[in-house]
Amino acid sequence: MRDAQPGQSSTVGSEEALVARFLAPLAEGHAGAFALTDDCATVSVPPGEELVVTTDAVAEGVHFLPDDTAEDIAWKALAVNVSDLAGKGAEPFAYLMALSFPAAPKVAWLERFRDGLQAAQQQFGLVLAGGDTDRRPGPLSITITAMGRVPEGTMVRRGTACPGDVLLVTGTLGDAALGLEMRRQPGLARNWGLTQNEAGFLLQRYVRPAPRLALRAALRSAARAAMDLSDGIAKDLSRLARASGCGAEIDVRLLPLSAASRRVIGTDPSRMQAALAGGDDYEILAAVPLENLAAYQTAAEAAGVPVTRVGAMTKGPEVAILGPDGRAMPLASPGWDHFAS
Amino acid sequence: MRDAQPGQSSTVGSEEALVARFLAPLAEGHAGAFALTDDCATVSVPPGEELVVTTDAVAEGVHFLPDDTAEDIAWKALAVNVSDLAGKGAEPFAYLMALSFPAAPKVAWLERFRDGLQAAQQQFGLVLAGGDTDRRPGPLSITITAMGRVPEGTMVRRGTACPGDVLLVTGTLGDAALGLEMRRQPGLARNWGLTQNEAGFLLQRYVRPAPRLALRAALRSAARAAMDLSDGIAKDLSRLARASGCGAEIDVRLLPLSAASRRVIGTDPSRMQAALAGGDDYEILAAVPLENLAAYQTAAEAAGVPVTRVGAMTKGPEVAILGPDGRAMPLASPGWDHFAS
Repeated sequence: MRDAQPGQSSTVGSEEALVARFLAPLAEGHAGAFALTDDCATVSVPPGEELVVTTDAVAEGVHFLPDDTAEDIAWKALAVNVSDLAGKGAEPFAYLMALSFPAAPKVAWLERFRDGLQAAQQQFGLVLAGGDTDRRPGPLSITITAMGRVPEGTMVRRGTACPGDVLLVTGTLGDAALGLEMRRQPGLARNWGLTQNEAGFLLQRYVRPAPRLALRAALRSAARAAMDLSDGIAKDLSRLARASGCGAEIDVRLLPLSAASRRVIGTDPSRMQAALAGGDDYEILAAVPLENLAAYQTAAEAAGVPVTRVGAMTKGPEVAILGPDGRAMPLASPGWDHFAS
Repeated sequence: MRDAQPGQSSTVGSEEALVARFLAPLAEGHAGAFALTDDCATVSVPPGEELVVTTDAVAEGVHFLPDDTAEDIAWKALAVNVSDLAGKGAEPFAYLMALSFPAAPKVAWLERFRDGLQAAQQQFGLVLAGGDTDRRPGPLSITITAMGRVPEGTMVRRGTACPGDVLLVTGTLGDAALGLEMRRQPGLARNWGLTQNEAGFLLQRYVRPAPRLALRAALRSAARAAMDLSDGIAKDLSRLARASGCGAEIDVRLLPLSAASRRVIGTDPSRMQAALAGGDDYEILAAVPLENLAAYQTAAEAAGVPVTRVGAMTKGPEVAILGPDGRAMPLASPGWDHFAS
């Protein structure tokens, strides 16, 4: 391994050096990771619990911007996976990571990437258990498989909502999508009349998604179905409704908005679209039976997670979105799809 | 979803359609996959067992060739992961897959890709439990996380070999590397004087690696350490020795060679390098205590897996490779490294 002093422009000499120096420290605390010196990791699941697993890839230019910092990229790569677990009521504990670099990464970049992962690990309560690194043409990409645990049979599913269930979302919607627009067009914050704090808030919502792990117990005890919102509530609600074999109705006038995005929409009403179809919210949509509603709201409040009632499941099969005038609105774009032509 | 009839050039209309049509059938048999309609999958681990997990990515132009068939690409993506599990004595049962396409994939290609995965699943005994698909620039890439099981505490590790342990490898080495060379230079088979059968054998060894799952019980009961060979025995043995804190000595005259590669080396002795450092063998290197040697050989034979003694672990720390003259040889290239400059 080459000496990294002063390190600003040096690259690592080998795959082993990269793993030993930048990844192995992230695996401390998981004995079954064998300090990343083996091909596989072992993972134990206590009796009475089961594993909940998910995999999501992020790539430069698709899921993050080329000028995002290494810390933010690391955070986001882990957060989007942990958010999937949060939406299922699962407790994250370990992850695997496959890294693909188009060119040998710089030591300084890797140090910041490791720091970002370390911070995210501590925040979300999981450790690195294993991984794979390679070099290939194309964008920098990070594929994470996150593992969580639930008491057996208690994973909150997507396809189990029933007509009449109340729909609630956590936090506020659309912030990250507006933050991304601001990253793409630096003049927007001024056009929108945002204060520096408001602009910073929206940007932060884009670069540092905060999975709603605190909601786990409330979801498991009171929700009938749930999912995290990554592609916008319009599209994700359609998925939940279709998987559940029913319909749904939500009212845009009920969608929770931050002060910052309310100001944006005040200036440019078309930006309401961000809350419906912008994506990257990483909030949780839950379908809660009416008889559990008070318990869910109380548990969410106790966990410090704001939840807002936005609609209900219906017999369907339509998913209706009531617009500002209270009438079903057509959607210009139902949300992000990698394959739609 | 568009109709695929006649299907040769049509593409799928959405991510959901792709998942429902080409991936969901691969998840039949794993109830916790929820037919791929959820964000996460559940996985149960019976009491007394633990999970063994690994992740490996393959990308076009790096791990497979642009003109490899969709069936072969699918097979290889799964096989390289399952081989990691085989080297640890673990029994595969499920996997997650993240697919990245540079352009909307053709229906005909996806059908063949699904068929290749289906064949590999049946051969290796595991099913798809979940995944992620996206589009991004760069090469087609497939990142798989494979999950296996072992009785608790019995995963065969890489870092537990001891001086004096006998080193054995399964099958024959270098075939796949020669097959890859033939793919790159179609005239080589004739230059090497190979029969059609021999040429076909070497090509097959490259495109259809066959993880040594049958060796699982022998490894768990008799080996002290083991790993699958993906980057060539010279490099992989160095890893095993370093992780174990000792050295090793192997003799190239003992390396098992197929009839086809013996013929190649007879024509061009420098091709011996393929067996040492060519990579893509997906055979298993095991360090077996002398007192277990007979038991290991008997168990391997009973499982139908040929094993050959090639050397022994030493106090080290050197890893010595004795050449054709019985003297330690220098290696032109110690094996594949994505990051070596």
